[in-house]
Amino acid sequence: MHTLPNIRQNFSEWYQEVIDQAELADQSPVRGSMVIRPYGYAIWEHIRAILDQRIKETGHKNVAFPLLIPESFIKRESAHIEGFAPELAIVTYAGGKKLEEPLVIRPTSETMVHYMFARWIKSWRDLPLKINQWANVVRWELRPRPFLRTTEFFWQEGHTAHESYEEADMEVRTMLQEYVDLVQNYLAIPVVVGRKSPQEKFPGAEKTLTLEALMPDGKALQMGTSHLLSQSFAKAFDMKYQNREEKLAYPYLTSWGTTTRLVGAVVMAHGDQKGLILPPNIAPIQAVIIPIFKKGKDMHAILKIAHDIEKNLKKEGIRVHLDADETKTPGAKFYKWELKGVPLRIEIGPRDVANNQAIVVDRPDGNKKTVSLPSLAHEVTHMLTIIQRQLFEHAQARMHSKWFKMEKLAEFGPMIDKKPGFYQTSWCGNDECEMALKEYKASIRCLRDGKTFARCFHCGQESVQDVLVAKAY
Amino acid sequence: MHTLPNIRQNFSEWYQEVIDQAELADQSPVRGSMVIRPYGYAIWEHIRAILDQRIKETGHKNVAFPLLIPESFIKRESAHIEGFAPELAIVTYAGGKKLEEPLVIRPTSETMVHYMFARWIKSWRDLPLKINQWANVVRWELRPRPFLRTTEFFWQEGHTAHESYEEADMEVRTMLQEYVDLVQNYLAIPVVVGRKSPQEKFPGAEKTLTLEALMPDGKALQMGTSHLLSQSFAKAFDMKYQNREEKLAYPYLTSWGTTTRLVGAVVMAHGDQKGLILPPNIAPIQAVIIPIFKKGKDMHAILKIAHDIEKNLKKEGIRVHLDADETKTPGAKFYKWELKGVPLRIEIGPRDVANNQAIVVDRPDGNKKTVSLPSLAHEVTHMLTIIQRQLFEHAQARMHSKWFKMEKLAEFGPMIDKKPGFYQTSWCGNDECEMALKEYKASIRCLRDGKTFARCFHCGQESVQDVLVAKAY
Repeated sequence: MHTLPNIRQNFSEWYQEVIDQAELADQSPVRGSMVIRPYGYAIWEHIRAILDQRIKETGHKNVAFPLLIPESFIKRESAHIEGFAPELAIVTYAGGKKLEEPLVIRPTSETMVHYMFARWIKSWRDLPLKINQWANVVRWELRPRPFLRTTEFFWQEGHTAHESYEEADMEVRTMLQEYVDLVQNYLAIPVVVGRKSPQEKFPGAEKTLTLEALMPDGKALQMGTSHLLSQSFAKAFDMKYQNREEKLAYPYLTSWGTTTRLVGAVVMAHGDQKGLILPPNIAPIQAVIIPIFKKGKDMHAILKIAHDIEKNLKKEGIRVHLDADETKTPGAKFYKWELKGVPLRIEIGPRDVANNQAIVVDRPDGNKKTVSLPSLAHEVTHMLTIIQRQLFEHAQARMHSKWFKMEKLAEFGPMIDKKPGFYQTSWCGNDECEMALKEYKASIRCLRDGKTFARCFHCGQESVQDVLVAKAY
Repeated sequence: MHTLPNIRQNFSEWYQEVIDQAELADQSPVRGSMVIRPYGYAIWEHIRAILDQRIKETGHKNVAFPLLIPESFIKRESAHIEGFAPELAIVTYAGGKKLEEPLVIRPTSETMVHYMFARWIKSWRDLPLKINQWANVVRWELRPRPFLRTTEFFWQEGHTAHESYEEADMEVRTMLQEYVDLVQNYLAIPVVVGRKSPQEKFPGAEKTLTLEALMPDGKALQMGTSHLLSQSFAKAFDMKYQNREEKLAYPYLTSWGTTTRLVGAVVMAHGDQKGLILPPNIAPIQAVIIPIFKKGKDMHAILKIAHDIEKNLKKEGIRVHLDADETKTPGAKFYKWELKGVPLRIEIGPRDVANNQAIVVDRPDGNKKTVSLPSLAHEVTHMLTIIQRQLFEHAQARMHSKWFKMEKLAEFGPMIDKKPGFYQTSWCGNDECEMALKEYKASIRCLRDGKTFARCFHCGQESVQDVLVAKAY
């Protein structure tokens, strides 16, 4: 057990170290690829289960597309290959021979999906076609960070085809909203939504919507994206079908995805000097029971009651764990489960047994509360709801405290490093002005409705709309 | 809609065609890789959910290991690389450069898992270590068949480490039994279990246990395997830990897996001339409701009742689908859902509405039954249980009808082609006698306890034990 690096002064080191010590993930011997350990994977499984249900309830069906894609497919859509070329991992040998055509490990599946869509979509009756897959993808990563940027990562990618632009546009917005619900209501992380600038959008998309969260260090983290693809994909794959007017037409395509990066977001958004703090709605363990005894006659009575509590809480649907390890002190257990971010700790000692009560301690504040055993399940459920809400409100207040409105890049540019956060400003829409942000290692995270300032942050020409500028992960 | 090939005369063509027509899977443009379509994937999701729960309940935790493995890792265990070398797909370029060391797409994860185990296991307190992952793996396949043999396939792979041989051996047998329960109780396919011969075992294992099913064409299908690995893996990865006696020791390792091949097994084991027949316990749709009406005033009354039935059955936990498509005739719907193997069809027409009843038709036999609406949910549940049992019993009777006991290869060898099935015979244990089976394109599927014949099927020397011989997928 080591102390974590100071979270205020060394946020980046704290992040790496808490992932290691809380056993969320480990480095693998392949650079940029991590091993997700049981506790980290359990968080991902909870996130995945919640989103998977919503994806199904919104009319999508899960499928599995191949890992390997012919190199020529990736090249068919010109913006697509330009965007992905430097990140590709390429199989050149297989089955003991050099391959005639190299195969690319999917960085995303649009090209393969669209090839199959072209075979499946013959008539307007085949539309809408709405599928999703949970898959691993590979994008070669030069500066890997666990969960946030890894060469291999896990995600879901939805792919749909529609008869009309309007329907495709609705799909793109619907799935963005599902991500917002997931992230805000389950991960307890407030987000900002908006459109990506032309330079930041998905290679080959007409429009990319994004949700962006602000981390405690003032850097933005993209939490998911939803793309309205241009017709160029449909044309590149000759995806013609007979429409209601019995004419040949191209469908309107969308794709949308979110990744294991969300686990990294949870770590950053809520953690503190003691370690993780997991939102109850996705915590693998919502409450840990720690019996407190000296070996002897108390032990059996206390353990019996601890087991009863465990059973009762489980019956109420609470994810509870009894840490009955006799080789560890209560202090060591407190430390361990605080590090792992379990939202509630339930202590039960000799005096508690005598008084038919338990002590419940909340992880975010460390507040202690004495609760009578008959009302324990009810109280725990209530406290979990409160913690979930407080984590969100706390993160929201922080986001607002780091949200600045400033007109001129000359002023706010130099501040971005000292006071990182969202800088809301106004933009003329020109690429050159966007490029000027690079000098400050910042970028447009998303476009916003409205126009706070009359002039562009860089060129001073008339502005078109607001943008949120930040440094980003 | 096309008629399926004759299932008795062209089983292999029937198999390919039913997978295509029932929309379980499609060929992808990458040879040997398939696209699993929504209906096929839903079957896999049901199988996976059942097994995942059992894997967790038996004390294993899910993790994610990297897709890519350094080539040198695969080569560390000599039997392992010999077994897998011809099947490997190799990444030589990534991130725009030639890699210094090629990376292999995992054909299985033992080497990577053991590398990490060596880092995690320092003391006997770290044991047992029991993990599992649901993953894709790639083994280059020259004669691909959907689900049965594909270059990329999906599976779970469990990996465990234990203090003693006995504990590892118990783990191997426990997980084999979990597979048997899954396959027999959910997939309704009877299996035979036993040990693999030295030639057929996993490359690098000391012992491989297998479960084998017999398909209607008399060929065996391996349904899962469970390996007690030799100490050589632990040694190759220098996996030393301090044991209870404070001495350095190597742990005992196991691994076990089953794959998307199980979907292919279900297709073959239960299908008939009309298409699939899915066991209720894994059927994505257990009952389909088909309203029967001519457009007009009956329609609304019938649809209303059909919706009520749907709601009631859902409430009882039955996976039900109402096919209310107005553009298709009831006949076309019957055909479609028979092809897709839905175990029960519920018809509701004008006369049924008048009599407060429905007609329930079972897929395997086509038997019709009139059921009053108030008892419909109860009756459907009951009929699903019966179908589940009957499918198993039917497959079991077929297996026994194709199970022959014969002493001499000279006699049964020539029969294997004409009358394929399990040939139970006795063996001396020598490799040369096992090799003699190749002439008949057969192999030892598993070793069996007991000794039916005193002499070996090939050499005539004293036999050691029984073996089951068959042609295999």
